Order: sequence, then C-alpha cells, then structure tokens
Amino acid sequence: MTYDVIGLGVASVDFLCLLDSFPEWGAKTRAPGFALQGGGLVGTALVTLARLGARVCYVGKLGRDEFSEFLVREFEREGVNLKLKREEGILPVRAVVLVVGSTGERTIVWTDEGTSKLSLQEVEPDELVGSARILHLDYVGLELEAAIEIAKRARKRGVKVSIDAEKVVPGVEKLLDLTDLLVVPEDFSYQLVGERDPERGARFLHRRHGSEAVCITAGERGCFCLAEGEFFHQPAFRVKVVDTTGCGDVFHGAFLYGVLKGWDWRRIARFASAVAALKCRSLGGRAGIPRLGEVEEFLATA
Amino acid sequence: MTYDVIGLGVASVDFLCLLDSFPEWGAKTRAPGFALQGGGLVGTALVTLARLGARVCYVGKLGRDEFSEFLVREFEREGVNLKLKREEGILPVRAVVLVVGSTGERTIVWTDEGTSKLSLQEVEPDELVGSARILHLDYVGLELEAAIEIAKRARKRGVKVSIDAEKVVPGVEKLLDLTDLLVVPEDFSYQLVGERDPERGARFLHRRHGSEAVCITAGERGCFCLAEGEFFHQPAFRVKVVDTTGCGDVFHGAFLYGVLKGWDWRRIARFASAVAALKCRSLGGRAGIPRLGEVEEFLATA
Repeated sequence: MTYDVIGLGVASVDFLCLLDSFPEWGAKTRAPGFALQGGGLVGTALVTLARLGARVCYVGKLGRDEFSEFLVREFEREGVNLKLKREEGILPVRAVVLVVGSTGERTIVWTDEGTSKLSLQEVEPDELVGSARILHLDYVGLELEAAIEIAKRARKRGVKVSIDAEKVVPGVEKLLDLTDLLVVPEDFSYQLVGERDPERGARFLHRRHGSEAVCITAGERGCFCLAEGEFFHQPAFRVKVVDTTGCGDVFHGAFLYGVLKGWDWRRIARFASAVAALKCRSLGGRAGIPRLGEVEEFLATA
Repeated sequence: MTYDVIGLGVASVDFLCLLDSFPEWGAKTRAPGFALQGGGLVGTALVTLARLGARVCYVGKLGRDEFSEFLVREFEREGVNLKLKREEGILPVRAVVLVVGSTGERTIVWTDEGTSKLSLQEVEPDELVGSARILHLDYVGLELEAAIEIAKRARKRGVKVSIDAEKVVPGVEKLLDLTDLLVVPEDFSYQLVGERDPERGARFLHRRHGSEAVCITAGERGCFCLAEGEFFHQPAFRVKVVDTTGCGDVFHGAFLYGVLKGWDWRRIARFASAVAALKCRSLGGRAGIPRLGEVEEFLATA
C-alpha cells in the first residue's frame, strides 16, 4: 500500500463557538454558531489532502475515549487511512475556540492533559518511509527526536519531508535541516531568524537549511515563497472570513497537493492560498475545506 | 414496563473547561481540566436517579449527529432507559462552560440552534402516565403546552408530577397548578412571587398552586421547604466545590429518590442536599453524581 502523503503528528478535538461579541465573564450568552470538529496541524492537513483527492494516511496516538472515537470516525468519513497507536487512558488534545465573527478575534482554551506524543519506538519508520511520496510531520503529536530520525530516513530514500512547525523549540534546527518543503508562519520565521522581512527571512532559512521550497505565511497579507532561486509574493484571496482556525494546517495540505501534482511553485502557492481562504468562510478548521472542483471554480473566477 | 420516574425534557451536551482564572480575550490559555458531559435539567436528574438505583426512562427528542449519539451512549451507560423521538437534522442543546476553580465563577456560551422541543403529538401521554410513579418535566426540551396536558393526565391517574422550572415564562402558572413536587431556585420564586424571603415565597407558592411539597433552593445557603404544613431550612453541606454546573438538576433527581422511598420531608431535603453537594466536587454536571452507598457514608459522618 502506498500513499501520496503519510502524516505523523497531532489530531485534536475542537469545540467551536461563533459569537457576536466576546461574552461577559460570569454571564450566560447565546451563541449563533456551534461546532465540534477534528483539528490539529497534521490531522487537518491530511483531511485537506483527502478532500482534494489525494491518498493519505494518518499515523498518530489516540485512546479509547469519546474524543478519540470521534476523531477516528471523522478521519474515516473523510477517507483518511489510519495507522494508530491506541492505548486506554490516552486523550487527544482538546480545545474550546471562541470566535467573534465580526472581528475574527479568537480566544482559545486548550489542554494537553492526558495526551502522549508518538515516539520512534511506536512507529515503523522504514515501512512508513517506504510507502509514501511525501512525509508530513509536526512535533506536537510526535516527539521531535522521532521526527528528526524519520526525516533522516526519508531523505535517504528520496521521500520528500514537509513539516508544520508552529513554535520554535530547542533542537528544531536539526529537523529544519532535513525539511524539503518548509512552510512556516511569519512568527516562527521571526522567532528563529530575528528578521521581520519575509524575503530576508525566507532567504536566510533557505541558506541555512537548504530546503527546496521555503514559504512564509502571513495571514491576510498572503504568503512569501522562495523556490528555485526565485522569491515571490502570493496575495491572500479576499473572502468573507468567519473563522481562521486551521487556516495554516489547510494551507500545508493544499501546498503538498500542488507538489504531488508537480505544478510550478507560483501555481502551488496560488492554489494553497485559495484553499486556505475558502476554508475561512466556515466555522472550524475542517468544515469549510473545499473539494477540488470548488477550488478550480473559485480560481477560474478569482 | 413500569418506571419509578419518567422524565420528559432537555438533554444537553456540555463542554467544560476548568481554569485557574478567566482567560484573556484573544489569547491562548492552557486549562488544567477539560470534560465533555451530558447535561440538561431532566437529563441530569434522571442520571442522578439511575446512579442512586431508581428505574428511570428519558423521553426526549434527538437527532443522528455526533452530539445526539454521544448523549444516547451516555444514557445507556448510566442505565437510563430511552424513549426517543429521533429525527435527522435535530441537534441537542450544546454549551461551553468555562469554570474558574478558585472562585466557582462560570461563563456559559450555549446554543439552541437546530434544536426542537417535544410536542404533545410526539409522545403517548396516556402510556407514559400509566407506566410511571413520578413524572419529571421541564419546558426546555418539552413544549409548555405539552407539559401541562401530560401533567393533567398524570394528576387524574394519581401519578405525582415534578417539574424543573428555571425561567418564568407566560403560562407557567398553569403547570405549577398541576405540580405536586415543586422544587425551584430562589430566583424563580422571586421572579414569580416578587418576594425575596424564602418562607414567604414558599408559603405563597403553596397557597396559590397547592403543591404537596414546595422547596426553594438557594445555593450555598441551602434549601427551604414547606410540606405538610411545616416550614424548615436545610443548610448546604460544606464540600470542596470545584463546579456547581448541574447542581440543581442533581438536587431534583435526589429529591425524587427520597419521595420514591417514602421518607419524611426533612430526610428528603437532607439527602438531596448531600447528593447535590457531592456532585459539586467534580467538573461537570454528571461526573461527580454519587451512588447510594457514597451518599449514606457521607451522611453518616456529616
């Protein structure tokens, strides 16, 4: 069995409330929108790829509780194949996201109590590497050391490595050195490089880590890419934004879809921006992820 | 099939976060406690009765979504029998409850979007009335007119009627006229009677509606009961309170348990206060509901 993308990392449960304004503390407020959805960096990227038509597999650690069962059902419904380490007592990351529709401001309350990251001993890295065209990794659901070791083996076999890195943590540079497709939010780039300018940030990251493509995402200011020696800016598409939850995860998934298709980098960045923008029209990280036809239609008229 | 208590009303899904302090708006906050639990006035009262050992049946309206399935599984696990009207597209009431552990303050964001109340046409009132010793009703999950009609038929057959009334709504007096066991929070009594003094409130409600027992609950100030011509105060038990969510629902359930046992009113009020207090030691409306042995042990040493 081979997959276009195998993802190792976090899948979370998000409980989302759409509000007209932030509620008063201590009061009872009626919310016009409510949703329970799967989330998480790698989890949502894989759902994006599956909706677009790619063949994907999620490798992660879950329990036997209501939340874990919910995530499994949702992955199955989306056509995401699963290779799970399941253990009684393990819980997924859980979050409550309060979204103010008028301003897009979000308040997140979350917990990793009871969660557990995948370790190298819990996966079969060579089997994984041998059955994927791209490996997509985060170090929220996977130990950083495991991510580094898996990325090493992938590079040896010519399998492309992509990461979703939200936070700069000690030792992350080793993983970046092994990353072919480096898509990071501008805050990450700033923290790591100390450089607010996206072009200089991208050039620095490329020089230091040698990634084939570096893409710095900057929310409504679009994204900035450096690939094959060319730097360019892709503006964000204008849509009626309801909620930006999961926008970056979805961008990652759509970016990898373009890489799988062998498109040029400008087309990949434009496509990923469109998919991420379309997602933002709905509450939650996954509900609004479009299928391929919808993206093509959107791009044809954009 | 006969039941000790048949309950018609609301079952909700509560997503609870226990916090050290209220989070800043727009920020990301780690919560030390998280829980997904069933809730709702009648739903939680029935779970209380089931844990104590009573034979109960929940009559309500649910859909086929994740939330409805969760509620069904939870009721089944608790041994609550079910008589459900299930319709594609109907959603349960859903709530996010942010609890600050240090102060007990709660912020609730909830929605009734997609929900639907049970109507008289959707239940078989005579069959219900014929198979219960007590009927417990709320008008959050059941139309008020339906509650009134069912209560009428119950009274004719000598079946006791209990209600959980949170809000004063037009026409509620008709339902109160048909209520044998009237347990209401002090705010309800104040809104209806315009009288802050619990004794005068209870006497007024008894005089006007003729209930066999009137009990006004006042949180940490305990409860005030009027039954068989006697008025008395039951102080609240002192416990380490984590969360008061569902405290009133649990009090109702335990109160009915005492009525089923034929205990005197002082014993019933003391028992219900103990069960409600024990519940408050855990996050969420249902997790902390004790079993009978635990209550007896608590009362023996209290």
